[in-house]
Parts: sequence; structure tokens; C-alpha cells
Amino acid sequence: MSDRLLAADELEAKLRAIGAERYHHLHPFHKLLHAGKLDRGQVQAWALNRYYYQAMIPIKDAYALARLPTSELRREWRRRIIDHDGDGPGTGGIERWLKLAEGVGLDRAYVQSTRGILPGTRFAVEAYVNFVHHRPILEGIASSLTEMFSPDIIADRVRGMLAGYAFITEETLAYFTPRLTQAPQDVNFALTYVKEHARTRAEQELVLDALRFKCDVLWSQLDALYLAYVEPRLVPPGAFAPER
Amino acid sequence: MSDRLLAADELEAKLRAIGAERYHHLHPFHKLLHAGKLDRGQVQAWALNRYYYQAMIPIKDAYALARLPTSELRREWRRRIIDHDGDGPGTGGIERWLKLAEGVGLDRAYVQSTRGILPGTRFAVEAYVNFVHHRPILEGIASSLTEMFSPDIIADRVRGMLAGYAFITEETLAYFTPRLTQAPQDVNFALTYVKEHARTRAEQELVLDALRFKCDVLWSQLDALYLAYVEPRLVPPGAFAPER
Repeated sequence: MSDRLLAADELEAKLRAIGAERYHHLHPFHKLLHAGKLDRGQVQAWALNRYYYQAMIPIKDAYALARLPTSELRREWRRRIIDHDGDGPGTGGIERWLKLAEGVGLDRAYVQSTRGILPGTRFAVEAYVNFVHHRPILEGIASSLTEMFSPDIIADRVRGMLAGYAFITEETLAYFTPRLTQAPQDVNFALTYVKEHARTRAEQELVLDALRFKCDVLWSQLDALYLAYVEPRLVPPGAFAPER
Repeated sequence: MSDRLLAADELEAKLRAIGAERYHHLHPFHKLLHAGKLDRGQVQAWALNRYYYQAMIPIKDAYALARLPTSELRREWRRRIIDHDGDGPGTGGIERWLKLAEGVGLDRAYVQSTRGILPGTRFAVEAYVNFVHHRPILEGIASSLTEMFSPDIIADRVRGMLAGYAFITEETLAYFTPRLTQAPQDVNFALTYVKEHARTRAEQELVLDALRFKCDVLWSQLDALYLAYVEPRLVPPGAFAPER
């Protein structure tokens, strides 16, 4: 590794290259999900496990908030928490994910209990929360940059799932609609922030590593789903077992 | 769940029942490993990933040490750190695991770097360290009780691996010999401790949950190995890829 400082657009190109290699749109589980090739139980397992990730996002963002030094930065970041927790009962991203889970046939209280999730899901999500809690805020913000790649996957997912699964309606997938505008807004801030605040090549490398780490967090959740519910269907003791 | 306090032998019976259902001797990866059915690359992947678990054990035990209130308890627990870190260069469990890794053909510096380990390994091991760091010490001690079940699996493993793999010698497996006496000594203390210090049924249930959690930590590591190196051989970006 050279110690030459990268120009802002070079840093962005390297971030995008990490996404092209490691973002979870490449994972076989997503390919099956988006192609309509999973059965209802497998889609339930995805919705159930992914709920835990959704539910922990505001916790992760609260740790980030606690480390941001100015009202201006905290106001900006606070929006993410509002997006997920909503403005009142029945609103926000977590609530919309619960509606998705119910839409595919899961019981709301069971989903909220997180009793049936895979240990691999739990450990990956907790690693993300701990990362943002303990690493410098520059890296915490950089780890959010997987959202650079999410609008494409969301468009694919919504199109593929509506076409592929008779039991899924537009209403079930309502979670994703606001993400198409929220994610670019979030990315715009975070990308500008890391370009401005990574002031040495070493800091730029930490930014790149943070994005690699976050790609691992997302990828690892799909690995756990694939092993348990696709092949070889090795469901760990105590985890959700779909009706066959 | 009743709120009746369990007698000490009832608590122990419930702990043993968790092991019988959830300990990783039941995992298909271990069945293959011990039956001599893996190739050298797969055994390397196991040794490489398991190194990270070994290397983090003294960190986990140092967090436990920091939470123990008396010299007597700390002296007892300190033994575990000595077992792993040794009394000087070239001694201790971590060093013996490195010899095992070298014995199966891995480069020592590569193993120590942990660059090639699976994200699933990293997240599971970190979950264990964080558990002992943050949960009450009663639960931290209870989470060590998977050692109740380890002498049997070690005997199986050493017998099976010596019989099944021409590239493995008794010297390679020297890590396991002291574990056969260390583990029962550790268990004797930890089991007595949880029997005496879990003074309500709720605390006893936390003890049982801690052991279930630890079984998940071990199981999840084998899940990650199975997915990446046995079936469907889905090696995550950046992880160790055996020569085929």
C-alpha cells in the first residue's frame, strides 16, 4: 500500500469497487430470492432473520449519534433513527418490516421476540452494533456506505419478488419504497463526510476496511440463511424451522 | 417455567441435557473431521479458523478476571490464562495450536494474522468475548461450561484424526493432551461456582441460557466452515481458499 493520499474521486472509486466485489447482491441466497426460486418457508426465514438487523439499526445509529460532536451532525444522523423508529405508533421502517414479516405469514410477536433467528444472524448484527459503538466515528460512518449499493438491489428485489411469489403483494413490500429515497440522501451525507474527514491515507484505508467489514456483516447473514434453509438445510438447534 | 429453585444436581442434569442436544460434537463438520473424511485443505480451514477462537480465549478470560471480586477467585481463574499463554516463549495452548496449524501445512504468520478467517468465525468469537465482558460474571462462568463435554470429543477427535489423516501425527495434536486434564479441573470449579451462586430460579435459568449461548458460539463456527469448505463450498470474498 502506498501512503499517498487519494483524491476524493479515487476514494469513491475504491469504495465502489469494494461493493462490486463484496456487496450481498452477489450472494446466491439473494439470487434465489429475487428470481422467485425460494419457497414460502425460505422467504419467511429471510424475513424473520432480517428483522433482527432492521430492529438493531436505530441502536447502532444511537451509538453513532453519541459520538458525533456537533448539533448539525447529530441532526443529520438523527434522521436515520426517525426513518426506522417512525413518528408515532404504526410508522417507521421497523414497523414496515414487521408488516412484511406478517405479510409472508409470520406471527408478529414471534418475530419481535427474535427467538427463532439464527446464531449467525445474531452474531453478525451484534458485530455491526459493536463496531459503530467502539470504532472511531469516521469508521462508523464509513460502515454505513453499503447504502451506496442498495437502490439497485431494492429495485431488483421488489420486481423479482412481486413477479416470483404469488403470496407477496406490493403492500407487503412497502418497506422498500421509502428506502429508495432515504438511502441516497444518507449516502450523500456519509460519502461527503468520509471524503472530508479521512485526512491521511491510513485513515482512508480504515474507511475502506470499514466498508469491507460491513459487506462481511451482510454477506454472513445470507451465509447463515443459505446453510440453514437452502443447502444443506442444517437448521441449528432452537432456530426457526419452516413447515415443509 | 416454574420459579422453584432447582437442587444442585437438577441444575447439573439440565446443563448436561443442553450439551446432549446442542454441543458441537453433533455437528456434521465434526463428524466428517473425526471420521477422516475431510481433505487436507478442509482440515487447514478448520485449524486456521479455530486458531482465532484459541487466540481470543485469554482475552475472554482477562475480562472474566476483571470481574471476579476476590484474590482466591482470581487465582483460580488466572490458571486458565496461564494454560493458554504459557510460562515463556514456545509454551501454552495458543503456541500448541500454532504448531497444529503448521503441522497441517499452514504458514504461522498467516495464521496469526487471522486475515483468512471466515467472518462467521470472527463474529461468533467476538460475541463470546463480548458476552463475558458485559454479562454478569455468573453467566460468564456458566458460559465456560461447554468444557463439561470436551474430554469425550477430544478423545474421539485425536483417535479419529490419527487414524484418518496420513498428514497428522501425535505431535501435531499435542494441543489436546493437556486439555484432557485442564478441562475437568476448570469444570470442577465453574460447576461448583454456578451451583453455589445461582440463588434464584431466574439466575439458574440465566446459567442455562449462558450455556446455550456458548453452544451456539461453537456450533456457528462449524456452520461457517461447513458452508465455505464442505457444501456448497461458498467461500466468502477474501477468506482462505484451499488449494484444490
